Amino acid sequence: MRDFSQDHRWLSINTATVRQQHGRDWPLLDILDACARLEIRAVSPWRDQVHAAGLKETARTIKAHGLELSGYCRGGMFTTADDAGFRAALDDNRRAVDEACELGAPCLVLVVGGLPGALQGRAAHKDIGAARQQVTDGIAALLPYAVERRMPLAIEPLHPMFAADRACINTMEQALDVCDLLDPQRSGALGVAVDVFHTWWDPKLEAQIARAGRERLLAFHVCDWRIETRDLLNDRGMMGDGVIDLRRIRGWVEAQGFDGHSEVEIFSTRDWWQRDGETTLRTCIERHRACV
Amino acid sequence: MRDFSQDHRWLSINTATVRQQHGRDWPLLDILDACARLEIRAVSPWRDQVHAAGLKETARTIKAHGLELSGYCRGGMFTTADDAGFRAALDDNRRAVDEACELGAPCLVLVVGGLPGALQGRAAHKDIGAARQQVTDGIAALLPYAVERRMPLAIEPLHPMFAADRACINTMEQALDVCDLLDPQRSGALGVAVDVFHTWWDPKLEAQIARAGRERLLAFHVCDWRIETRDLLNDRGMMGDGVIDLRRIRGWVEAQGFDGHSEVEIFSTRDWWQRDGETTLRTCIERHRACV
Repeated sequence: MRDFSQDHRWLSINTATVRQQHGRDWPLLDILDACARLEIRAVSPWRDQVHAAGLKETARTIKAHGLELSGYCRGGMFTTADDAGFRAALDDNRRAVDEACELGAPCLVLVVGGLPGALQGRAAHKDIGAARQQVTDGIAALLPYAVERRMPLAIEPLHPMFAADRACINTMEQALDVCDLLDPQRSGALGVAVDVFHTWWDPKLEAQIARAGRERLLAFHVCDWRIETRDLLNDRGMMGDGVIDLRRIRGWVEAQGFDGHSEVEIFSTRDWWQRDGETTLRTCIERHRACV
Repeated sequence: MRDFSQDHRWLSINTATVRQQHGRDWPLLDILDACARLEIRAVSPWRDQVHAAGLKETARTIKAHGLELSGYCRGGMFTTADDAGFRAALDDNRRAVDEACELGAPCLVLVVGGLPGALQGRAAHKDIGAARQQVTDGIAALLPYAVERRMPLAIEPLHPMFAADRACINTMEQALDVCDLLDPQRSGALGVAVDVFHTWWDPKLEAQIARAGRERLLAFHVCDWRIETRDLLNDRGMMGDGVIDLRRIRGWVEAQGFDGHSEVEIFSTRDWWQRDGETTLRTCIERHRACV
């Protein structure tokens, strides 16, 4: 297992972690500058932040700072109420693949979608089995394009508390079943993003990480689970402030040969997004060394 | 599949559903009176409510009204930081078995506990695997007493969002693995309580309900999952106000021969606990007929 205690060369910052500071948006290019100043070597930007900053300008800034990417967040959202919506989702995902290529990302992370319409407040139906089938169909339809552009797709199983509105793939086992179905040859074109927030509770996590193996472990995200989680979406904890046995899980991932970045992804309306962004980045560095 | 649309003979009220009205405690004996007035035939009381009302007085009122029980909530909480705590937990569980017998419950529901100390705000450790082993040990230690008293134990898998603080058994598969281990002969002494709030998202739910079979399906709890869930614990929806395909899941349970009550269990600080209790009970009846 790698020793993280001496430096932060394996740390990546998911830019959602400092999406806001003092409760206001922190522009992506400023985030990238701050990361470079702190000798953070990798980031994973969110699409809306990239669009706001401009794709070309973002790519140029990343290159100028010599930053690597640990992923691009995010494609997915395949579940729609009608065929026109499904086609539009696929088009949008192809654009996300293109952007990931332009930015030099190692994978496009997929948050696959929940019940159609639920994220907008009204579900078109309650058939989660049908939503899951639509997700499989969507990934199947996107995969040839991603293969052509050589952009691996990383399915991110989301915590079951997001099954209704964000992602109906909720366990590693389920994500890997889709991988087995669509990429049985384990080509590396399709895999998973393991986020400890979403998966730490899973009694089958160790076994499913082993099942995934190196070819399918495309990203590793860390944060922590606060005992008192005050909001389902935006109350993630800083590493060390919760109950997740981070080192144990990283050990399982590295036992499969994973040698990529440990990407910090924290959504925190009440806490971290209220602080100074650079202070948050410094805390990420400290905790990466002490707790991950 | 049974027809619920004509009457509410199969409805049970978990008394937590009307634990409060107008934001204040509604005493259990008053709840029981109201249920009887509305021709509700079954209830499932919570232990703290029973203790407040008095065990003997509660048993007498239940008998006087001719009410049945669909369960007794709850035993469990086996995870402790030390042996003395574990022994105290077992003693308390034996008392819960005794109370369930006195009240004439068909099963004692077990909420097994999360990381020791977490519910009190500080986890003694982060080893969820060890917590799970302690739960298995606790149920194994309790089972002979429950068998002697002829009180079936119903393990309730809780939603993964409660893995830290309330229950580290989070899927039907996991609960049934414990049943297989401790009661391989499927004697009926150990089974599961299937609550749709905790399990609706599970891609393996149908298969695991079939695996459970009639002998192990000891209770069936309903409510709904609100798309906008504002609080992890106390924001459950009334049947029909969320996205759970209740009838489909009831169909799976009944396909195994389950013919018990459909127990409404809603924790709702902001909504239903603020209303008039009898109005809430009437709504339960309506929705039981229309949506379950």
